[in-house]
Amino acid sequence: MKHTETFFERDTYARHTGIELLDVGPGRARVRMVIGKVHANSHGTVHGGAIYTLADAAFALASNSYGIPAAAINATIAYMKSARSGTLYAEATEFSKNPKLATYTVEVTDESGEKIALFQGMVYRRTPRQ
Amino acid sequence: MKHTETFFERDTYARHTGIELLDVGPGRARVRMVIGKVHANSHGTVHGGAIYTLADAAFALASNSYGIPAAAINATIAYMKSARSGTLYAEATEFSKNPKLATYTVEVTDESGEKIALFQGMVYRRTPRQ
Amino acid sequence: MKHTETFFERDTYARHTGIELLDVGPGRARVRMVIGKVHANSHGTVHGGAIYTLADAAFALASNSYGIPAAAINATIAYMKSARSGTLYAEATEFSKNPKLATYTVEVTDESGEKIALFQGMVYRRTPRQ
Amino acid sequence: MKHTETFFERDTYARHTGIELLDVGPGRARVRMVIGKVHANSHGTVHGGAIYTLADAAFALASNSYGIPAAAINATIAYMKSARSGTLYAEATEFSKNPKLATYTVEVTDESGEKIALFQGMVYRRTPRQ
Repeated sequence: MKHTETFFERDTYARHTGIELLDVGPGRARVRMVIGKVHANSHGTVHGGAIYTLADAAFALASNSYGIPAAAINATIAYMKSARSGTLYAEATEFSKNPKLATYTVEVTDESGEKIALFQGMVYRRTPRQ
Repeated sequence: MKHTETFFERDTYARHTGIELLDVGPGRARVRMVIGKVHANSHGTVHGGAIYTLADAAFALASNSYGIPAAAINATIAYMKSARSGTLYAEATEFSKNPKLATYTVEVTDESGEKIALFQGMVYRRTPRQ
Repeated sequence: MKHTETFFERDTYARHTGIELLDVGPGRARVRMVIGKVHANSHGTVHGGAIYTLADAAFALASNSYGIPAAAINATIAYMKSARSGTLYAEATEFSKNPKLATYTVEVTDESGEKIALFQGMVYRRTPRQ
Repeated sequence: MKHTETFFERDTYARHTGIELLDVGPGRARVRMVIGKVHANSHGTVHGGAIYTLADAAFALASNSYGIPAAAINATIAYMKSARSGTLYAEATEFSKNPKLATYTVEVTDESGEKIALFQGMVYRRTPRQ
């Protein structure tokens, strides 16, 4: 999906955060982030904002995978476990979609498969009338 | 509050995102972010992850303002309006607090006072027994 | 606001739950619920679903106060404190509104003003084009 | 699971709402609600509060399935589609659990399997120290 790779290349803040695209398809995406010093919060673990941004990058790729611009209108994240080192993965799945609104879930796991966070987000699309 | 300034200095990812501490007090905090090229998403507006991280930084400062470590367990963000340039502000307010759990709201506005996002988050604290 | 009173009279499930309309205006509403045996959950306190329904009734009144049908698309609720008896109040406030999407917050308190829950919800409106 | 059936029998508000227990096991539960006149909102479709209560009942059963009291601390619901008649089902699944906090997802579907709502909730447990 050439379109989607270009889409991710333009995602400056995701790349500033060290996020890499692994895989994308219709309504789904997978990204990763190798934990570095830059991701630390004041407690020395990975920042909630970095984990959210990882999940959000997968959500944006999945919801924009049809070539129609989708804007996030809200999202919820639950944090299960703090992370300190290694690689984090986020996998976005489309739960439902109608012409205007669509809902996605994103699971964030570490490299041993431990659950780090669960994200649920909604987008609004201006699907062109035909 | 010396403690809180040190707390913010250790928040590497917030500083990597360009967030600055403006003001902090018991159960409240205010931060800002001058929008730069680094904050862009694929649509050319400020990334939802950067807006979340701004809100989250205020939330972390407010919830850790008592000197007892507080860990975010979940958060919700609603996005009202996209932002392109200028400065964004986030202001966190404590809504409620008991020995273990506390809830905060964070409003994100731009420099003309327009509402950009509304954030609601919960922390868990291991308040020492006495 | 005759329209709004009729709107509430048609809200069968809110009335089945014992919710009463106190006050409504553009983008805001206040309702109450006298706690009865019917509201109990398995722990003997007021059911999370009843508290949510109370908040949701205020949210529906506030978001439909302009006479344009508004449909809830999502909501988040945080519970602070359990309730056992007396009266609960929910007050909805409009946080932001554009032609399609609007966000409301609802505070649920008991009769001594203690915070019981905090609700944040979003609606979608098919505002007629002119 | 005798304990769980008794637990559900004591859930007065869920039964007031017409919810029936179908199945429960460790960390999971399934309930249903035959849509009646009582569930209507002002628009004539099933009330968001009734759909939330259905999801919440499954969440409560799943999170209390271990015999240790679990209190909901927050929840998010996204609504996909309105429902008018027939039967709604809610199925709760445990996403993660530690001694204090656990996260569940609940899918609400209608009798033809159409997605009606997606719920994500967190509980706090006072797991006894040993």
